[in-house]
Amino acid sequence: MRAAIADNAPMTTSPDSIRVAQALVQQCQQLHQQGIVALATACQSPRGLSAERLDQHQLLSYDMAWTSAELLAASNALEQVAGTPDSLDAELALVFTVEAITAVLPRLEMLFLELSLEAEPLHHLRAGMAWADLRRVAGSEAALARTGQRLQSAQVEVGMVELDESIRLVQETFQRFGQEVVAPLAEAIHRDDLTIPETLLQPLREMGVFGLSVPEAYGGSGTGGEDDNLIMVAVTEALSQASLGAAGSLITRPEILCRALLAGGTEAQKQHWLPRIAQGQPLCAIAMTEPDHGSDVASLTLRAQRVDGGWRLNGAKTWCTFAGKAGVLMVVARTDADRSLGHKGLSLLLVEKPSTEDHAFRFEHDQGVLTGRAIPTLGYRGMHSYDLSFENWWVPDSHVIGEASGLGKGFYFNMTGMVGGRMQTAARACGVMRAALLAAQRYTQDRKVFGQPLTNYSLTQAKLARMAARYACCRLLTFQTARTLEQGGSLASSLVKLLACRSAEWVTREALQLHGGMGYAEETAVSRYFVDARVLSIFEGAEEILALKVIARGLLEQALTASGGSANAQANAKATA
Amino acid sequence: MRAAIADNAPMTTSPDSIRVAQALVQQCQQLHQQGIVALATACQSPRGLSAERLDQHQLLSYDMAWTSAELLAASNALEQVAGTPDSLDAELALVFTVEAITAVLPRLEMLFLELSLEAEPLHHLRAGMAWADLRRVAGSEAALARTGQRLQSAQVEVGMVELDESIRLVQETFQRFGQEVVAPLAEAIHRDDLTIPETLLQPLREMGVFGLSVPEAYGGSGTGGEDDNLIMVAVTEALSQASLGAAGSLITRPEILCRALLAGGTEAQKQHWLPRIAQGQPLCAIAMTEPDHGSDVASLTLRAQRVDGGWRLNGAKTWCTFAGKAGVLMVVARTDADRSLGHKGLSLLLVEKPSTEDHAFRFEHDQGVLTGRAIPTLGYRGMHSYDLSFENWWVPDSHVIGEASGLGKGFYFNMTGMVGGRMQTAARACGVMRAALLAAQRYTQDRKVFGQPLTNYSLTQAKLARMAARYACCRLLTFQTARTLEQGGSLASSLVKLLACRSAEWVTREALQLHGGMGYAEETAVSRYFVDARVLSIFEGAEEILALKVIARGLLEQALTASGGSANAQANAKATA
Repeated sequence: MRAAIADNAPMTTSPDSIRVAQALVQQCQQLHQQGIVALATACQSPRGLSAERLDQHQLLSYDMAWTSAELLAASNALEQVAGTPDSLDAELALVFTVEAITAVLPRLEMLFLELSLEAEPLHHLRAGMAWADLRRVAGSEAALARTGQRLQSAQVEVGMVELDESIRLVQETFQRFGQEVVAPLAEAIHRDDLTIPETLLQPLREMGVFGLSVPEAYGGSGTGGEDDNLIMVAVTEALSQASLGAAGSLITRPEILCRALLAGGTEAQKQHWLPRIAQGQPLCAIAMTEPDHGSDVASLTLRAQRVDGGWRLNGAKTWCTFAGKAGVLMVVARTDADRSLGHKGLSLLLVEKPSTEDHAFRFEHDQGVLTGRAIPTLGYRGMHSYDLSFENWWVPDSHVIGEASGLGKGFYFNMTGMVGGRMQTAARACGVMRAALLAAQRYTQDRKVFGQPLTNYSLTQAKLARMAARYACCRLLTFQTARTLEQGGSLASSLVKLLACRSAEWVTREALQLHGGMGYAEETAVSRYFVDARVLSIFEGAEEILALKVIARGLLEQALTASGGSANAQANAKATA
Repeated sequence: MRAAIADNAPMTTSPDSIRVAQALVQQCQQLHQQGIVALATACQSPRGLSAERLDQHQLLSYDMAWTSAELLAASNALEQVAGTPDSLDAELALVFTVEAITAVLPRLEMLFLELSLEAEPLHHLRAGMAWADLRRVAGSEAALARTGQRLQSAQVEVGMVELDESIRLVQETFQRFGQEVVAPLAEAIHRDDLTIPETLLQPLREMGVFGLSVPEAYGGSGTGGEDDNLIMVAVTEALSQASLGAAGSLITRPEILCRALLAGGTEAQKQHWLPRIAQGQPLCAIAMTEPDHGSDVASLTLRAQRVDGGWRLNGAKTWCTFAGKAGVLMVVARTDADRSLGHKGLSLLLVEKPSTEDHAFRFEHDQGVLTGRAIPTLGYRGMHSYDLSFENWWVPDSHVIGEASGLGKGFYFNMTGMVGGRMQTAARACGVMRAALLAAQRYTQDRKVFGQPLTNYSLTQAKLARMAARYACCRLLTFQTARTLEQGGSLASSLVKLLACRSAEWVTREALQLHGGMGYAEETAVSRYFVDARVLSIFEGAEEILALKVIARGLLEQALTASGGSANAQANAKATA
């Protein structure tokens, strides 16, 4: 590859550059794996990973999650563009790879320093020809300017995914619906903090949005294969591009509920609920988080007490999105008073309630009271997230998912839904990024500064290239995760959620910045994208919890399993040192 | 230093670590200077810097500005803590230095790669003992955790600045006023988009806020020395901590207007206006930006046409903050119809108008019309920024700053005010950071997760340490800039504005994240800090313009001047290559 480079001239993207990039990413992954194994060894106790040692290594664990996510996104993108080295997406994959490796190297160096690993291979990689060549090709001023220019003149989709004709059709339908029906209402819903109106919900019901994860046998359109996930991701992205709050997040709740019902519901429950959910009648919400227990599911306290023929609920939930409009809430409740059972004492109860657009409600039923209050938020408006309080609220036995045999299994029934929810949240982040990127592309073409359109300046071009690269690679990974989710893509779903959500914060920040003062005006949609994006790293697995408790833990456990006895021996050696 | 390190144990901060850090920063600065000289040479034309070549190198120029800002903040902080190596601030200075060098090295590597400079010294620095030692001392997990713990238990001010007793007293007075009077009103002003009420303005008038930059001889409290700037920065930070929009930004406008009057006003104008401005009667606003000309002052088009005894204004302004409440606007207008004069055709006109709290106004006076409309914004509320339209608005000759001799000099009269405004904006950013940091410190102590206060976790400690480090170093540099502003600190004022504003975005983002869902709720002050902080990188010199047109250009010009003939010779060699 080296010979092809004349002076500082950027190389044209070529199969060669992609191979070089792949090799570099692979080297980073190998070095990272070495770090993971070393950290796993350092955290090993006779009974697996030591919680105490993990707690001491939170920063390395956190960084490890980010490194894994970035390298996975880069390697996935490079693999997908390998066949089309001349495409814009190939350029974007290389641009992202440069960004990713630039971010990853200092983290790897710190990891190696902390764990006293031999840093020479890292220094070698950093000082080597391949890395210099790749940066010239896809990280230099000239290269980024060229990619930015190409982005601005090309009439092609960024982060292009090969989809079957039928899925592509669904995608286009929802993109059109998003732009023509949702987008014109999105500003008012956001700025006046309205509830999503029936004028939006009714056509979405008719388009089958709520039945995407419901199997055909139960009145939905799900076929149970990877296509279900691809469609869900495509539709979620398309709707989120128009509005995260007013449309893009509608599918998350039915998906979680359906997956729980499919995992644990009785046949009668599936027959009763799934067709209704598929039709969006009733709409549904998930009540899991509690005021004092955000991410700590095992400590949830909302009590369901046994009474004749059912249960009485007492306690509080918070951040229950769409709880007002919803006609049914899936409540994660403690059906066993023994709190030492942790997550094994939890069950899923379906609570029926009247639907309301009010920001505050109070319902009484059979000597029980349910009150709700919408929490005002910076963005992500339209569905509203509610504080809920249950006082002696009655739930019949028939409304416990799985009935008697579902008791204590709530956590497990909920798990597949959460994994799907993360992938969907990555798709939501992609939609917001896409909207922000397109807005920035348009604005910089229209806006003149110092006598020229903003887009003519090389800094603008570089910024747009990097934004597009990040969006494209997050998008490619989101769809790839959808393809592979059912074959154990749980870790990938967490990795892409982590990366896409933070990326959306950054892309919307840059898009706003490119708008200058206008970006800060609430009259400009990009200001909404910015505040909407900020919720993404908080909900559906806050980034710290996801990074530490799901991703890093998963990687370290994998490493222990893989290295087996040898890691064990090293750990013992270290522990006695 | 090396000998003192046992395994991975973090060293205690010591004079040694500070010296090592200083040496590393200095090396980075020298290498950076080499890059600056090389870029200046590459951009040189026979008549100074070539605009065309500068445009090709916007990305390098942009990165160069950030590198300069970070290294300056690090070196300044290290110098200031050198005498107290055991202090928390010394730890924070080292933590920031690690962050800064980590960010700077990849940029330097790219700069060297692009300009074909010998990268060996960079690789050497990166792979060297000193850098590894410094990271162990102030960048390792254990070190960051320790600094975070110390921050949480220490009852000391972060970013402690030595101030004279009299200034300290002013600072404390305004900190107290901010917490006791401003903060309780801040939420309502933000969420209901109110105008700052007289219940806030009147005590601030009485406390002399509007007279800080007015010399004593004209009824203010200014003495003309560095103390004026120190007080202004201290007061601005203290008020911004309570609210950026409702208090922290009140001083910026009078300062800009006073500096313009002092630079160019006639004695009669100074006698008339300065005492009134000092008393905050009238309040004032600055009308510079136009809808089609954000940062491009030379292209401003609002016309002042000569008529008998004065001028008629026609045209539009935008983002005129506080224009409703203000009784006088300083309008940058084109008094010479010859547009080729650029900024030399501009003058400063004082427009008197009625004060109003309305979001929209229309005033008629002497056959002229002035209309205004508050632009709704994500944050920075309370003052409102207005679109203004002037139709045949009459301004008498007496209201042109400098009268006849001030014509065409508006740009120059305005310049010192802009420089002061940047320093003040850095202080505003510091106030917002301080508020966010303190909120995060409190919240993480109160909030329990997985059975422990959030603050007990090492990731929280590391995050808090980095946030505090960034705040402390921005603060130290802001005050240092205030001390040296009158001796040519113009570049420093731009550098600290650039860094502090972006830092405020990051610190408020992290503070919000540490609050989890609650941070996204509008009921929590940290959500306001986050949206308020977002304006900082946009106004008072958008970060791209500041980085490219002020900082990078300044650095490159300095380099050309310093290198003189030799750079010239190299440039010629390069141009013919």
